[in-house]
Amino acid sequence: MPLMLDEIYEQPSAVANAIERNITPVAALANALHEQGIRHIVIAARGTSDHAATYAKYLLEIVCKVPVTLAAPSVTTLYDAQVNLSGCLVLGISQSGQATDVVQTLSAARSSGALTACITNKEGSPLTEVSDHVMLCSAGEERSVAATKTYTTTLAIIALLAAQWSNDTGLREGLRTVPDAIQAALSLSEPIAETVQRYRYMEECAVLARGLNQATALESALKMIETSYLLAKAYSMADFLHGPIAMVSEGFPCLLYAPNGRAYPSMVELALKLKEKNAEIVVFARAEEIQEIATRAFAVPVDIDERLSPLLYIVPGQLWACHLAVARGHNPDKPRGLSKVTLTR
Amino acid sequence: MPLMLDEIYEQPSAVANAIERNITPVAALANALHEQGIRHIVIAARGTSDHAATYAKYLLEIVCKVPVTLAAPSVTTLYDAQVNLSGCLVLGISQSGQATDVVQTLSAARSSGALTACITNKEGSPLTEVSDHVMLCSAGEERSVAATKTYTTTLAIIALLAAQWSNDTGLREGLRTVPDAIQAALSLSEPIAETVQRYRYMEECAVLARGLNQATALESALKMIETSYLLAKAYSMADFLHGPIAMVSEGFPCLLYAPNGRAYPSMVELALKLKEKNAEIVVFARAEEIQEIATRAFAVPVDIDERLSPLLYIVPGQLWACHLAVARGHNPDKPRGLSKVTLTR
Repeated sequence: MPLMLDEIYEQPSAVANAIERNITPVAALANALHEQGIRHIVIAARGTSDHAATYAKYLLEIVCKVPVTLAAPSVTTLYDAQVNLSGCLVLGISQSGQATDVVQTLSAARSSGALTACITNKEGSPLTEVSDHVMLCSAGEERSVAATKTYTTTLAIIALLAAQWSNDTGLREGLRTVPDAIQAALSLSEPIAETVQRYRYMEECAVLARGLNQATALESALKMIETSYLLAKAYSMADFLHGPIAMVSEGFPCLLYAPNGRAYPSMVELALKLKEKNAEIVVFARAEEIQEIATRAFAVPVDIDERLSPLLYIVPGQLWACHLAVARGHNPDKPRGLSKVTLTR
Repeated sequence: MPLMLDEIYEQPSAVANAIERNITPVAALANALHEQGIRHIVIAARGTSDHAATYAKYLLEIVCKVPVTLAAPSVTTLYDAQVNLSGCLVLGISQSGQATDVVQTLSAARSSGALTACITNKEGSPLTEVSDHVMLCSAGEERSVAATKTYTTTLAIIALLAAQWSNDTGLREGLRTVPDAIQAALSLSEPIAETVQRYRYMEECAVLARGLNQATALESALKMIETSYLLAKAYSMADFLHGPIAMVSEGFPCLLYAPNGRAYPSMVELALKLKEKNAEIVVFARAEEIQEIATRAFAVPVDIDERLSPLLYIVPGQLWACHLAVARGHNPDKPRGLSKVTLTR
């Protein structure tokens, strides 16, 4: 069994543990945000962590009503620009805590008077040294190169922060149910392993969602790229209709993440448009209507607050990537040309 | 001759005209930014306009040292969240001025006390009605569905704003030279038309740049997707090394935008890594070193301030997309399934 699959299965307990262990550090950060009257967040991250940052942008804007900026690290590292971030929270996300450009961005922000915080899986890493507040995924070492449990635990910490800062009891209570929901979603492993056979020779695909689950589309596409070496491209449904839909011809494979919630009607609309073009439509959803439009559908066995759905819906996406890689004859734990820590100058 | 090619050729005069006509409105906006002490910009845009927004993010952060947030319009339109944007400039970009979600984002921001402005090609469009400051591309009607001259004129207005706001004389003077530089770059049309024959049957490709020219990579990829229906995926070189490089196998086509400047050494480093993997490397550059690493290279005939290079380097990218579409037997002016105005709810 690939390590990646092991680590996918560890997520119910890893997420529960991350929530438990971060109650105190997250409360301390939320207090600091209140005390300092901070109303603007900047997040620095790369790769999978940048997808967690995308979730954070949507969730914090929706729940806490503060604008969230995704930093372009090269503005600091390449162009030496000292952007004025005083009065902001600058949050760095890096599972290894070693992403050089993220560390530099936080370090520069701190000098300019920003409050800094980080989410990382590595205690004592360089990123923790430039952070006023440290939140640890506490997911245990991630041995597969493709990140899974560090992604979902990071999302859990972000949701905890949003709930704490806005004092949203519903969100906090909902978060408590996530480990069980992930456990239930693991039952999709077998049907996914069977269905991916059909996509053994797929060369490219589009991965589509809207709103909060844009993070899910991005992360799902990256997992396929890393482990199956195919060109998977993620789009927001809204951006997709602004041009890229032109590339969809008969049989073109499209993966759709469509949990219940505000974004759901848009996803049905998209599925119908894709069906008109005779695209191949793979759907991950709770609702039946969109499953009936699909070529292949996976019924997610539990319902969940849309604001937390990215923690749940990425799980079938991870399973899909892992099983697809195996079906294509690859070892998902050792993607060619990748190492666990990427240092970007 | 496709309308798209006509409109690519109109760009030297369109850009010169856009600069001339926007000196007064941009000065008025810069004054308002100074007077109101605004230190945070939020930009709402979709599709090609979102790539212009990406350029604006880098340029304004580097030149004006203010954080720039790319809005997720669905936060407003789908989730009804009233993000607190008082004290911000909220800038909408839409060539048609009709992008519903961009209009809604500006309208909501204005009610919450933000200063609003827009860049559009359509006088009197809905977007102008929710904007305190209006900057017009004045590019004339764009008849091809694939946007070209509205993109470069938008970039010119952004550069003018950055120069004016920061009082950067070098940037302003440099901008004056852009129309002639674009004119010179049009000489690449013929060599590009010949070279694209080699890529007649290409099914997918990666488009790579770093820093300021990430906008160029995104826009170049979108032009190919829209007109040649192939899966072109843009990456920042830094993100690419964090995972996606795994998909590069022998002969995998990669387009690299590598103007002189701070990002150039990273692009050489990337080209060497791709060469090790025997990838097919197409380079657009001024410097010879990286051209020598490439499989096919286009020598951009003029040098330019890196901060303005996205206005110049997209031109061979547009030519490439247009000629490639023709070589593949498509009409670049009428992409299947697309219309000029996309309305997203």
